[in-house]
Amino acid sequence: MTYDAGHYDVIVIGAGHAGVEAGLAAARRGAKTLMLTLNLDLVAFMPCNPSIGGPAKGIVVREVDALGGAMGKVIDKTHIQMRLLNTRKGPAVRALRAQADKPLYIKEMKRILENQENLTLRQGMVEKLLVEDNEIKGVVTETKAAYYAPTVIVTTGTFMRGRVLIGDLSYESGPNNQRSTVSLSEQLEELGINMVRFKTGTPMRVNSHTVDYSKTEIQPGEEEPRSFSYETTEFITDQIPCWLTYTNEATHKIIDDNLTLSAMYSGAVRGTGPRYCPSIEDKIVRFNDKPRHQIFLEPEGRDTEEVYVQGLSTSLPEYIQNEMMRTVPGLENAEIMRAGYAIEYDSIVPTQLWPTMETKQISGLFTAGQLNGTSGYEEAAGQGLMAGINAAAKALDLETLILDRSEGYIGVMIDDLVTKGTDEPYRLLTSRAEFRLMLRHDNADIRLLEKGYELGLIPEERYQCFLEKKQRIEEEKARLDKVILKETEEVQAVIEEAGGTRLKDAVRAIDLLKRPEMKYSHLERLTPSEVSLPEDVKEQVEIQVKYSGYIKKALEQIERMKKMESKKIPENIDYDDIHGLATEARDRLKEVRPLSVGQASRVSGVNPADVSILLVYIEQGKIARVSGE
Amino acid sequence: MTYDAGHYDVIVIGAGHAGVEAGLAAARRGAKTLMLTLNLDLVAFMPCNPSIGGPAKGIVVREVDALGGAMGKVIDKTHIQMRLLNTRKGPAVRALRAQADKPLYIKEMKRILENQENLTLRQGMVEKLLVEDNEIKGVVTETKAAYYAPTVIVTTGTFMRGRVLIGDLSYESGPNNQRSTVSLSEQLEELGINMVRFKTGTPMRVNSHTVDYSKTEIQPGEEEPRSFSYETTEFITDQIPCWLTYTNEATHKIIDDNLTLSAMYSGAVRGTGPRYCPSIEDKIVRFNDKPRHQIFLEPEGRDTEEVYVQGLSTSLPEYIQNEMMRTVPGLENAEIMRAGYAIEYDSIVPTQLWPTMETKQISGLFTAGQLNGTSGYEEAAGQGLMAGINAAAKALDLETLILDRSEGYIGVMIDDLVTKGTDEPYRLLTSRAEFRLMLRHDNADIRLLEKGYELGLIPEERYQCFLEKKQRIEEEKARLDKVILKETEEVQAVIEEAGGTRLKDAVRAIDLLKRPEMKYSHLERLTPSEVSLPEDVKEQVEIQVKYSGYIKKALEQIERMKKMESKKIPENIDYDDIHGLATEARDRLKEVRPLSVGQASRVSGVNPADVSILLVYIEQGKIARVSGE
Ligand SMILES: Cc1cc2nc3c(=O)[nH]c(=O)nc-3n(C[C@H](O)[C@H](O)[C@H](O)COP(=O)(O)OP(=O)(O)OC[C@H]3O[C@@H](n4cnc5c(N)ncnc54)[C@H](O)[C@@H]3O)c2cc1C
Ligand SMILES: Cc1cc2nc3c(=O)[nH]c(=O)nc-3n(C[C@H](O)[C@H](O)[C@H](O)COP(=O)(O)OP(=O)(O)OC[C@H]3O[C@@H](n4cnc5c(N)ncnc54)[C@H](O)[C@@H]3O)c2cc1C
Repeated sequence: MTYDAGHYDVIVIGAGHAGVEAGLAAARRGAKTLMLTLNLDLVAFMPCNPSIGGPAKGIVVREVDALGGAMGKVIDKTHIQMRLLNTRKGPAVRALRAQADKPLYIKEMKRILENQENLTLRQGMVEKLLVEDNEIKGVVTETKAAYYAPTVIVTTGTFMRGRVLIGDLSYESGPNNQRSTVSLSEQLEELGINMVRFKTGTPMRVNSHTVDYSKTEIQPGEEEPRSFSYETTEFITDQIPCWLTYTNEATHKIIDDNLTLSAMYSGAVRGTGPRYCPSIEDKIVRFNDKPRHQIFLEPEGRDTEEVYVQGLSTSLPEYIQNEMMRTVPGLENAEIMRAGYAIEYDSIVPTQLWPTMETKQISGLFTAGQLNGTSGYEEAAGQGLMAGINAAAKALDLETLILDRSEGYIGVMIDDLVTKGTDEPYRLLTSRAEFRLMLRHDNADIRLLEKGYELGLIPEERYQCFLEKKQRIEEEKARLDKVILKETEEVQAVIEEAGGTRLKDAVRAIDLLKRPEMKYSHLERLTPSEVSLPEDVKEQVEIQVKYSGYIKKALEQIERMKKMESKKIPENIDYDDIHGLATEARDRLKEVRPLSVGQASRVSGVNPADVSILLVYIEQGKIARVSGE
Repeated sequence: MTYDAGHYDVIVIGAGHAGVEAGLAAARRGAKTLMLTLNLDLVAFMPCNPSIGGPAKGIVVREVDALGGAMGKVIDKTHIQMRLLNTRKGPAVRALRAQADKPLYIKEMKRILENQENLTLRQGMVEKLLVEDNEIKGVVTETKAAYYAPTVIVTTGTFMRGRVLIGDLSYESGPNNQRSTVSLSEQLEELGINMVRFKTGTPMRVNSHTVDYSKTEIQPGEEEPRSFSYETTEFITDQIPCWLTYTNEATHKIIDDNLTLSAMYSGAVRGTGPRYCPSIEDKIVRFNDKPRHQIFLEPEGRDTEEVYVQGLSTSLPEYIQNEMMRTVPGLENAEIMRAGYAIEYDSIVPTQLWPTMETKQISGLFTAGQLNGTSGYEEAAGQGLMAGINAAAKALDLETLILDRSEGYIGVMIDDLVTKGTDEPYRLLTSRAEFRLMLRHDNADIRLLEKGYELGLIPEERYQCFLEKKQRIEEEKARLDKVILKETEEVQAVIEEAGGTRLKDAVRAIDLLKRPEMKYSHLERLTPSEVSLPEDVKEQVEIQVKYSGYIKKALEQIERMKKMESKKIPENIDYDDIHGLATEARDRLKEVRPLSVGQASRVSGVNPADVSILLVYIEQGKIARVSGE
């Protein structure tokens, strides 16, 4: 029936945002990698908002880049505008956000995939996983091609038993009228993997010519050249604006009056939707005292007139979509080019995964992206990257990579997913990261590039640049630590200009920089470095010096966490053997099978008392007894 | 159930090559036009070969351009190489052919649609036509939007009950894994429209990195800047080569041994395939003495590594596709990115159409493109354009346009379709045109631009340029007719250089140019024009003068044809009333309902004797009696 279509180290199912990073990372580690996708014309397709980045998410893109991923480079080449958000606030919440040119993004990502050594990109619908004795062996496509590999990464996004819903219309479909994937989902269930039903939605797109922008506020891009990738050297200078408008009472009334017609509210959708990308229906219901909601009008690209109506995600019937949209200033005569819709799909309960993204049930089977219950391109990319790294590790017997919660948002996300699970589409938020002061936009390379290099994901040349940067930072901090600034008139003048109070005594340059009002640029005037330093080095020096107090405290906390994290729980632990554990804790621990006491302490339902009992049990070496070793 | 989504003059279903020209033409004529398509990301998508033009087809593109269509302009902007074919042969068989950048073609065409006044482009699946008393009233989409219009053009290509076939795999699908259209096809049948089942196929695409080009022959583009459109002024200079290789006995043996596994040969496909774009299976069976077949390797675009394997169109199982492909020099290690497949679909028996492209059964319902039993992008574009022109005419009560067989390949094609029908996917060939000497690449504007202008499809400025060109041609011909060249040494030298025999007497310049060896460039040296003439004027002068004998004869034939064409057959003729008509002729005439005696004479099964009887009947004015007028 099937034919032998080839042997690989890693097979990636899907070429969405998770799939592409997975495939690229695996191939870069040297694994012979096959990537299968339904439609080669829609690689790395964005079915929803034309943008990448934003709070937390933007930092993930930087992390992906520091580990050799593609998302940052591609959006750097294909955006229509870019902004650094929260520049007035502290560095911990700064984040880059770019509006994407969707068709160009596809083209550029496809080009990268096609040119990646060790990677074979192919159109094909995977119908079945080959599994023997709970070990993955490969996949079979609908054309009966059997591809064999010791590791398979499933990144099928919202395609698993996808159903599109608009009002009372509902049909089996993947996003954007693509085919849905049914048999794979059924098979995962048969293999004992728990699935839940989630949903998400997207707003209408309108023709730009039919928008009256004079009734909206312009949102220009930033002049300052920015980039997600540390490697980007060419910057796009002709930025295209977005536009801001608002809903109003008339909009809300139409939605309210027609709530029962929305697929989401009529009971047609069983799945749970994303709390942080709510539909306009959700917003009206949940915040029914808010007089208006923001609507951003975002071009879908440079060479298209399609405009994405951010904020009006909906599954109302098309005619109500029309009506409510036309109450919004600027959209009175707007013509819909694509209607909004909701999609409902199967996703995997992510506590069934190890932190490597490998499923616990099936050895060698990895999953990543929206399939794991997340929402968002960046979340998908981050998971894909990690799954790619670790699948290659398993196939080639290389080092695995698990990031902890202090090392990156990627670490936070994966730890949240595999430890706590999620009962709604999971989105990254800065508030999820307890060490967010450490997980900054500006230091993703300092946090992760070394690891990327060790895993073979970062080219030598780039690594050398990075080492040089690090060295310069240290040297400059050391220099500022040595320089003593006297209370001369020149110094006092600069301080007063910055809005500070005059010095009483001489001071170390480094201590002056710690004052809130002082910037590195002030110091530079008073004690210029002998070598000319790049902007990113200056930025690092400023941030590291200014926040050294906070950072020190955070590092102590991280130290404590790492201690708990280093207390490994052997895989073969028998929770039933541990006396005194609360029943809920026992059940949850058996389900999640945390790898460390640290992870165990974050499992919901596990209390500090349970953690103590667990610690004692492990330290007494009872495991050895249990396992008979 | 449905909601009123708006009123239009013309609704176009589909945005393939037929749909886009239909929509643009209708909108340019001033009709408020709606265009609905399944996926806005795949507007004007090329599901098969990445090329436009070639013999006959290339001339259609010029004709489309002369009538204000978009295909020529878009391919001029988005090709990777262009060649004028048959430059050594006579002007009648010259034709332009371009390799297209597929993703760029989509982008450019979409941009044109989005910016066309009077045209609304929208994503949506049409589920039903609204028909009352055999008159079209509008359409309903699956989201229950009812759009109303007095004319609807259906251009759904290969989507009607589309089924994809690869070996014994078969599933309901449009091309490239898009959704197929079932309910529309069923409804057309219910409305009494006869449908037949046709099929077509496409070869695999391979990754360029896996091709060994050293074993193939390079096919460079031409240095000479060329364009399809008369309006193009910027030319692409960096052309990308294609590559030529061949099948061999090993290839043929694999195909032969596995014929029963091909969807086309196993009996799985019921439809009839295109004779002139045969699958490789067809070629092996039909030309089994040919030792090899050409295979062109054609890039699918500038920024992609996908390469189209022209010549290996197939519905063999994927593993046989692999095997046979790898016997071809250069493709020994090639990796398939997309497998070849066949698609089977419903198409309309085109004798059910008037030459305006309106269906006879349903007033206001037009059809165009592959749906009418043709094959090829250019054939689709030509029909779409005419349907758009005539649907707008009907809706707005403007002049209709029917091209006769002497005016253009478009006229030949539509006359063939509506008069003779087709029992296999119809493709344009130069041999189909009896006046092919008149239907040249070089004179499409002279043939058609005036008509385009009169219909409002050509902007004033362009029309003025055209008039100027025509005037210059006439003036230059008149000048050459007056100039007498004496048998001076200078003249003799030029003649001898051109390889001709010396003059005995003085001669008119125009008569010298008629000599086969003489070119306009020679005349130019002997008697330069006082004004500097553009190249296209010189070309026209040369061709018109050189072939004036043939042209005169052709014009006489055309005259005779036009006479027959001008003998109109009233719509209400009762063929049963005409004594002496052969039964077959009577049946076929009743089916086709030709508009003129000329057209009647081309209906298959109608003999000259039947034509005479018909002529007499009409000339005796019997119609009046029948209709009681
Ligand atoms: C309608 C809609 C609205 C959304 N709204 C939001 C939002 O508001 N905010 C937000 O953050 N995110 C939103 N998203 C989610 C966002 O698009 C995803 O998070 C992101 O695209 C997920 O990336 P992924 O790689 O996991 O999956 P996808 O990008 O969906 O990619 C899945 C890939 O798997 C392939 N595939 C599927 N089945 C098979 C098979 N059987 N064989 C081979 N290949 C297969 C597909 O071809 C595709 O390449 C929305 C998504 C949709 C569809
Ligand atoms: C596999 C394959 C192989 C081919 N091989 C060849 C070849 O070798 N040589 C050759 O000359 N030609 C070939 N063709 C044919 C060529 O692609 C077509 O002739 C050409 O694309 C036809 O143009 P069209 O506009 O008629 O239809 P298409 O380009 O198919 O466009 C149809 C349009 O209708 C839309 N549509 C369909 N149903 C609906 C609906 N219900 N509501 C709204 N919109 C709808 C679609 O979205 C699409 O935009 C091949 C086609 C296929 C699919």
